[in-house]
Amino acid sequence: VLGSAAGGGFPQWNCGCPNCVRARTDGASGHRRTQESVAISADGDEWFLLNASPEIRAQIESFEGLHPRAPRHSPISGIVLTNGDMDHVLGLLSLRESHPLFIYATDAVRRGFSEKNVLYRTLQRFPGQVTWVHLSFGRKTHLALASGKPSGLTVTPVAVPGKPPVHLEGVAPATDEEGIGLLVQREATDETTQKTLAYFSSFGALTPEMEAVMRSADCVFADGTFWSNDELLRLGLGTKRAEDMAHAPVGGSGGTLQRLASMPGRRLFIHINNTNPMLFPDSAEAAEVRNAGVEVAHDGLEFTL
Amino acid sequence: VLGSAAGGGFPQWNCGCPNCVRARTDGASGHRRTQESVAISADGDEWFLLNASPEIRAQIESFEGLHPRAPRHSPISGIVLTNGDMDHVLGLLSLRESHPLFIYATDAVRRGFSEKNVLYRTLQRFPGQVTWVHLSFGRKTHLALASGKPSGLTVTPVAVPGKPPVHLEGVAPATDEEGIGLLVQREATDETTQKTLAYFSSFGALTPEMEAVMRSADCVFADGTFWSNDELLRLGLGTKRAEDMAHAPVGGSGGTLQRLASMPGRRLFIHINNTNPMLFPDSAEAAEVRNAGVEVAHDGLEFTL
Repeated sequence: VLGSAAGGGFPQWNCGCPNCVRARTDGASGHRRTQESVAISADGDEWFLLNASPEIRAQIESFEGLHPRAPRHSPISGIVLTNGDMDHVLGLLSLRESHPLFIYATDAVRRGFSEKNVLYRTLQRFPGQVTWVHLSFGRKTHLALASGKPSGLTVTPVAVPGKPPVHLEGVAPATDEEGIGLLVQREATDETTQKTLAYFSSFGALTPEMEAVMRSADCVFADGTFWSNDELLRLGLGTKRAEDMAHAPVGGSGGTLQRLASMPGRRLFIHINNTNPMLFPDSAEAAEVRNAGVEVAHDGLEFTL
Repeated sequence: VLGSAAGGGFPQWNCGCPNCVRARTDGASGHRRTQESVAISADGDEWFLLNASPEIRAQIESFEGLHPRAPRHSPISGIVLTNGDMDHVLGLLSLRESHPLFIYATDAVRRGFSEKNVLYRTLQRFPGQVTWVHLSFGRKTHLALASGKPSGLTVTPVAVPGKPPVHLEGVAPATDEEGIGLLVQREATDETTQKTLAYFSSFGALTPEMEAVMRSADCVFADGTFWSNDELLRLGLGTKRAEDMAHAPVGGSGGTLQRLASMPGRRLFIHINNTNPMLFPDSAEAAEVRNAGVEVAHDGLEFTL
């Protein structure tokens, strides 16, 4: 886990809410979080990023597996985008130094980032700087190594209730491809058994199809943005409800935590907003998460399935 | 000094040059640098940023003076852009959370960032989210506090030999306003005397006008991108010379260091590329800089004039 916070990170630059104040004054205890991104690998040698956060440079430096091993090199073989939100795509513009990028995204996300965006020209410095690989619902796509060989990992996009990024509202009609979840599969080899990861870092509701994918997975990452629907309103920090931003709340009756509680695999919340009380392990909400056998992801978390 | 590195930072994500390898393995010694940005203040209470680096979130968190003091607040009263390069503007998109921004820039830089850029819509969430203040050569401009009152600081743009950002090459004809230097003045009050800062973090050559401004200043920040003109070629890391990228080299006969050596004020190099040997204090180049009475800026450096 390179980053586990929602857009804006934790603490957020212009936020002095009780959570952000505590994170700043209690900084050594590891509450701080950069914006959501996860690195996955089948062999521990070549890696794929799920989303490209604005803080991608620091995130790459934070994990030795992502460091270059030659004068011009990166072990990052590709980047999978789950939606076109600023906190998921802005980091692509920080990967502009003459390195071929392989980006896996739906057509809607590709167009949202690469069209009408003069900044994207920084990734058009030479032919082939960016190769877009098209993702579509239900189609299993192999993630390829830089050499072109299969990585042993596949991703299968799953439809999630979402919405276009704020900066694209009104630019083009919303499609059903604005946001996706991912079923990530590690193909079985002689030495390994197949392992699966359900990556759903952003969703407005939990559909039966999503729930079936989650139930089948060895590990689930789920949208942990808000604890409650009216979190920003109660803190006086905003006028939007969680549902207005296409994030299903974690807590309460019918919340995501209740739905995750009965699932069999390892389950973690990610993309956690700075206002979410579960960010602090000593909160009642964090205890509720633990008691359900679910984890709150944090930056620097590493594990093998 | 919030950040002292050139675009890409130090180390750079896909660079395994000797400098970057040493920075990664010798990480505790403070060689690492984020991308160039400086915060200035007349009163230590309200602040202005010179440039908005992609790493702005971590930079804000790194310096207590920039932390919010209310549930929704920022002591950053404005941001001055010296050119439209990605490493100077990308951070603006990370300041999108419903906070009014005052951005000081030339017309060329404003247009380059705000036109044909769909991502800019993230800063158009409410009327008045961004106020652009027009900078033009030789015209002294007051930096205003959020309250509208004068901050006590003024900036006067100075022409520098520059070029358009890589991503804008070929988009519009280059103007003479692509890059500027800044004469920053702290107006004299009863308790203080006037102080001046010459901020020239990027220039292709040192003109007599620039040199006169630098000589008059209490403190000078100068372009420290490359030590030598053929630095990238000799390391096998690129095909461009320093001059192709509009950066005058620091070292050698006629280099910026020779020109700075005889100036009276405090003098620092900033915007230092990952390949520059002066990044390490034990290098011959760093010794040459010190012997000339000049400093190599580093992240976290704080001083009062």
